[in-house]
Amino acid sequence: MVKKACVCSVSDLLAPHAARVEGDLHRWLVERGTPDELAEAMRYCVDGGKRLRPAIVHLTHEALGPGEEDLAARAAVAVELVHCYSLVHDDLPAMDDDVLRRGRPTAHVKFGQAMAILAGDALLTRAFGVLADSGRRLAGAVAGELALAAGGAGMIAGQVADMKLCRLPAGQGGLRFMHERKTAALIRAAARMGAICGRAAGPEVQAVGDYGLSLGLAFQLFDDLLDATASAEAIGKTPGKDARAGKRTYVTELGLDRARALGEELTQQAVAALAPLGRRAAVLSELAELLARRTH
Amino acid sequence: MVKKACVCSVSDLLAPHAARVEGDLHRWLVERGTPDELAEAMRYCVDGGKRLRPAIVHLTHEALGPGEEDLAARAAVAVELVHCYSLVHDDLPAMDDDVLRRGRPTAHVKFGQAMAILAGDALLTRAFGVLADSGRRLAGAVAGELALAAGGAGMIAGQVADMKLCRLPAGQGGLRFMHERKTAALIRAAARMGAICGRAAGPEVQAVGDYGLSLGLAFQLFDDLLDATASAEAIGKTPGKDARAGKRTYVTELGLDRARALGEELTQQAVAALAPLGRRAAVLSELAELLARRTH
Repeated sequence: MVKKACVCSVSDLLAPHAARVEGDLHRWLVERGTPDELAEAMRYCVDGGKRLRPAIVHLTHEALGPGEEDLAARAAVAVELVHCYSLVHDDLPAMDDDVLRRGRPTAHVKFGQAMAILAGDALLTRAFGVLADSGRRLAGAVAGELALAAGGAGMIAGQVADMKLCRLPAGQGGLRFMHERKTAALIRAAARMGAICGRAAGPEVQAVGDYGLSLGLAFQLFDDLLDATASAEAIGKTPGKDARAGKRTYVTELGLDRARALGEELTQQAVAALAPLGRRAAVLSELAELLARRTH
Repeated sequence: MVKKACVCSVSDLLAPHAARVEGDLHRWLVERGTPDELAEAMRYCVDGGKRLRPAIVHLTHEALGPGEEDLAARAAVAVELVHCYSLVHDDLPAMDDDVLRRGRPTAHVKFGQAMAILAGDALLTRAFGVLADSGRRLAGAVAGELALAAGGAGMIAGQVADMKLCRLPAGQGGLRFMHERKTAALIRAAARMGAICGRAAGPEVQAVGDYGLSLGLAFQLFDDLLDATASAEAIGKTPGKDARAGKRTYVTELGLDRARALGEELTQQAVAALAPLGRRAAVLSELAELLARRTH
């Protein structure tokens, strides 16, 4: 575990893990035989992320491990590849039609729609390839978590809801349905994948999963708050776009003050879920608290 | 193994396996919690296929098994889900912009582009979920074959080549590069996955893989021939579209007669690859011969 004298921000806390993930991502991303043009687009699609989800894999693995170090590193890469593919496809003209992501042109603006669709498909496929290539028996359980969280009853259901392609309950119930699937399911899976790699017991996997779900909801809520209040420079994407697109967000539903209060409540739920793990979970609690105070 | 007195066509040979695959597909396709609208689109995207790839999984598994019956059934479903997702994404306006598939409107015509992209993503994700849910140790090796064949150095590279998004050698070399990846890689993987589930020895897996690669190339070549000569009614999609789209096919490169001769040659290569397997591979040889004589 990497110790720092003063962890003052999310970036400080994630930095050592994010650095490791960068190396692993670029080592495993492109298979031999991939056309150069596709490889370039795939690299572009994964560059520049905060690496929150893979860091959560590493943090839960460290908290509940040791064991299966290589598989945990692969799980971290896999969850980030799934996250990156989802951004690329969500940004497409037929979806959110966004032109700015991580402070740069979105993949379809840079490479055209066909390449953006295919690069996204390649990232999703590679996520499962990276796990399978481990040769480890536990890889199946890890892949199962990822597929469930990313699939038609998980992240994709969330995007279907966000695109108003399915019926939803009115008000906060509908928002929660969407965010649980679109954002929180994958963060929950990241936490569970790290725990599974660390050969944690069932109740421990459950505890970090509950933490991940509340953390994911809080993370999305604070994202909505930042979208409503921050500048493009600070957040690296088009701000205020949700409101202009007529999208329901926690801010449009609740107003800024009640949304902030709900964010605090979700953060406390995330921390409370970790109680069964005692001191081992200190850094996970700290991450939840720091995410509630981030400004970008 | 299902025996028939007279197997006169590809459909006759595939029928008993295709029937089984239909049941398995619909049993495993939609996870609980999937929004109804997404589930409907996913079902539409998988309906109506010939089930060639999953039948090849079952045929190689029967030839080289027994063992791992459940995993083989899952491998068959997984390879078909990957095939179906690739058709949905390839048909999109930003790709081949096709409106007719299997005699019906393409998914994006029926459900809109956003839902078509997401249903495709959900099918791809579910393919790996179906394998992971087996709980079998061999599922990792099977998933690895599928990810390699479907990924950025396999099927997606083929589509990148077909969309002229990467540099290719001129003439037949470029066509072969494309078809090996776009079509043959997944058929090769289907054969290898069936053999792996049947706990076949390495040289046997290699032999059916070589068979699958030649069979896949022959299959694509006969597809090009049908596209150039058959009616929409017979093939269930827009005919002559390749030529009008200015696409290079074996027919535009070689002319009908030389293309037919190459198809025969590839068929014989497929049959020859099976020699080490002796009589166990009789039905696989028969499939290759029947595919060379199909009219739709």
